[in-house]
Amino acid sequence: MRTLKVALLGCGVVGSQVYRLLAEQADDLAARIGAPLEVAGVAVRRPSRARAVEIAPDLLTHDAMALVTRADVDIVVEVIGGIEPARSLLVAALSAGTPVVTANKALLAEDGAALRRAARAGGADLYYEAAVAGAIPLLRPLRESLAGDTVRRVLGIVNGTTTYILDQMDTCGSGFGDALEEAQALGYAEADPTADIEGFDAAAKAAILAGLAFHTTVTAADVYREGITGVSAADIASARTLGHVVKLLAICERTGGGVSVRVHPAMIPRTHPLAGVREAYNAVFVEAESAGRLMFYGAGAGGVPTASAVLGDIVAVARNRLAGTRGPEATTYADLPALPMGQAQTRYHVALDVADKPGVLARIAESFARHEVSIKAVRQEGRGDDAQLVIVTHAAPDAWLAACVADLGAMDVVRAVASVMRVEGEGDE
Amino acid sequence: MRTLKVALLGCGVVGSQVYRLLAEQADDLAARIGAPLEVAGVAVRRPSRARAVEIAPDLLTHDAMALVTRADVDIVVEVIGGIEPARSLLVAALSAGTPVVTANKALLAEDGAALRRAARAGGADLYYEAAVAGAIPLLRPLRESLAGDTVRRVLGIVNGTTTYILDQMDTCGSGFGDALEEAQALGYAEADPTADIEGFDAAAKAAILAGLAFHTTVTAADVYREGITGVSAADIASARTLGHVVKLLAICERTGGGVSVRVHPAMIPRTHPLAGVREAYNAVFVEAESAGRLMFYGAGAGGVPTASAVLGDIVAVARNRLAGTRGPEATTYADLPALPMGQAQTRYHVALDVADKPGVLARIAESFARHEVSIKAVRQEGRGDDAQLVIVTHAAPDAWLAACVADLGAMDVVRAVASVMRVEGEGDE
Repeated sequence: MRTLKVALLGCGVVGSQVYRLLAEQADDLAARIGAPLEVAGVAVRRPSRARAVEIAPDLLTHDAMALVTRADVDIVVEVIGGIEPARSLLVAALSAGTPVVTANKALLAEDGAALRRAARAGGADLYYEAAVAGAIPLLRPLRESLAGDTVRRVLGIVNGTTTYILDQMDTCGSGFGDALEEAQALGYAEADPTADIEGFDAAAKAAILAGLAFHTTVTAADVYREGITGVSAADIASARTLGHVVKLLAICERTGGGVSVRVHPAMIPRTHPLAGVREAYNAVFVEAESAGRLMFYGAGAGGVPTASAVLGDIVAVARNRLAGTRGPEATTYADLPALPMGQAQTRYHVALDVADKPGVLARIAESFARHEVSIKAVRQEGRGDDAQLVIVTHAAPDAWLAACVADLGAMDVVRAVASVMRVEGEGDE
Repeated sequence: MRTLKVALLGCGVVGSQVYRLLAEQADDLAARIGAPLEVAGVAVRRPSRARAVEIAPDLLTHDAMALVTRADVDIVVEVIGGIEPARSLLVAALSAGTPVVTANKALLAEDGAALRRAARAGGADLYYEAAVAGAIPLLRPLRESLAGDTVRRVLGIVNGTTTYILDQMDTCGSGFGDALEEAQALGYAEADPTADIEGFDAAAKAAILAGLAFHTTVTAADVYREGITGVSAADIASARTLGHVVKLLAICERTGGGVSVRVHPAMIPRTHPLAGVREAYNAVFVEAESAGRLMFYGAGAGGVPTASAVLGDIVAVARNRLAGTRGPEATTYADLPALPMGQAQTRYHVALDVADKPGVLARIAESFARHEVSIKAVRQEGRGDDAQLVIVTHAAPDAWLAACVADLGAMDVVRAVASVMRVEGEGDE
């Protein structure tokens, strides 16, 4: 019986778990694939360094390029992360017809197109289930289960750090700074939390999700990005009054001739399937034309869950390799334009501290009308000097809404714009 | 370019939507498959009957067997439902090497093994994503994404009628009878609701889920089944006090050398990902060794969502057919024994109306100890004649728990067993 040889690039948090599972599940994997797997080599930066798993010294190499281009390697598994040398290694493998399984979020979000081109040129499989939302199966559901359907919209909670901080602000009433400090103390946020709280991590995942959902090329640079540093206790309180909760969302929408891909905090109804997602869990809500509303939920990160996703891909790629065929990637890659944020259809929640005088609402409503923004609901809270108008709009181009809010802030009857936040997911429950 | 010919068996609620989507999405499907699809024929009982979609008269036939055995048919799609003639038709197709896509829950739950045998003998694909939980992608996640992992447990909410009734009892405080009547009036329950409220529908789905999750053969007859007709307002109130909610669960567990597959009402924590599932939505919670906890959520039924799942399968099967290969089904089918309910490890919630006298708790605790059932928590509510003891146990074999409750009911200090219900999902959040 033929043996399939696997080249493992990287042996860190995920790689060591992949190595361990390949050994521990060897019999089961061989049965499911129809042939045994064998690790041909493990490329690491420092072969002599101590590792979480024991690896035969003769398998370790620091020459990753020599490993991926070995004629006897059947599958390349990349868990190094980062752009280079990962990109050069994977392009070399794919161009030579060797299938690739990768968990490299950054590379796929920045230059997934280069990998897809190489995969097409070499006629090789490119699988990356582990690159977005950890162990949650998304690649196959989006690429295969919905292959006869059309995805309209994806809403994802794909960053655990921001989920934790926003949840703390909601349950404990703490401000952003305090919640961030606590998250850092507990290890939920890194010492430099920029990638998480400014939405860079979520934007990379949004780019990959949009590509999967709409069969098009979206890079992280195409994604409008707004982090959670501007979310105030007043925003959270406003959301609560509305029966909503604030989450950092990755949003991908198929819209008139293009796609809108964006990451920003938004209020969603507490009854929305995404509202209950907490701590390190991720969830991706998908709306498809025929299938309707779907949600996928699970561990968004972690060495073992991510390794499970890598192994699922290895099985698929190995089976294709044995059968001399390829998976369904790339058969119909479109090139839909990414629309600028100003053209995205959004809805706003606006809380205005106003002077409680006759005619105030009329003047404010007139300002919305001038910007062609339709008001869905308006509510006055408090009286006299404490009066606040809370307005929820219907959908309109984001630029119109932003311009309207700027105008409102300049009106003499408006003492302050207490809270502005987009609203998503109403009617999804 | 080669054309792939599809034989459609049945043209009812699902079939007519499959036919419509095959026509409407023809270009997109051809691009994703790599070849156009063509409907070779549509088998129906009464070709002359009016239908929801317009079908060329020469495609309609009542001779389904002649259609599935036509030499030019590449894929058979079955949406007739029921055991016969569906089974004979699919066995004939599969044995002859023609791949099958089916949405037939009843047939798969009663005799999926016959279909798998025929598929193996004929070397043909058998796909049935639409047979369980409608449009929710489960087949590929369980069969492919988790191919390198081991599923330990599946908890599913797979019946919309019972979800609606239990939700009404929870939110309105109504009894089972009133909630059922309302569900019938609103069309959520059928005039003869037996299949739903007695758990037969959920049991069929549980059998299919267990087969997918554990790569083994489970039939509906192997599934322990308890419906919701015995759920009382007192049970619902007790669950609420505990911070729990009652759902009819389909439970599949891999346990010492076998599988436990059962359907019964159970209390789950309100913070459990399954707790928020409402109305016609279904959700399946999966615990895998490496991937951890996953949940899949979506529309559980309906012609269009189910047709979407059928189309996803058609694309996969058509791609395999073109490539001359097969999907990953059946490579490692085990034959794990289905354990009797008495051996399932469960946890009970028991509310006892007791005489509030010294020594009562000691006598009751002694009874639990005699049955080797460990008590996790006990709480007394009320005093004197209104005293109630609420007990939640640790996990124990179901038979021991049942015997313990029977003994308690016979004790002189116990005036009545007010509520007994299994508890699931604690610690899953």
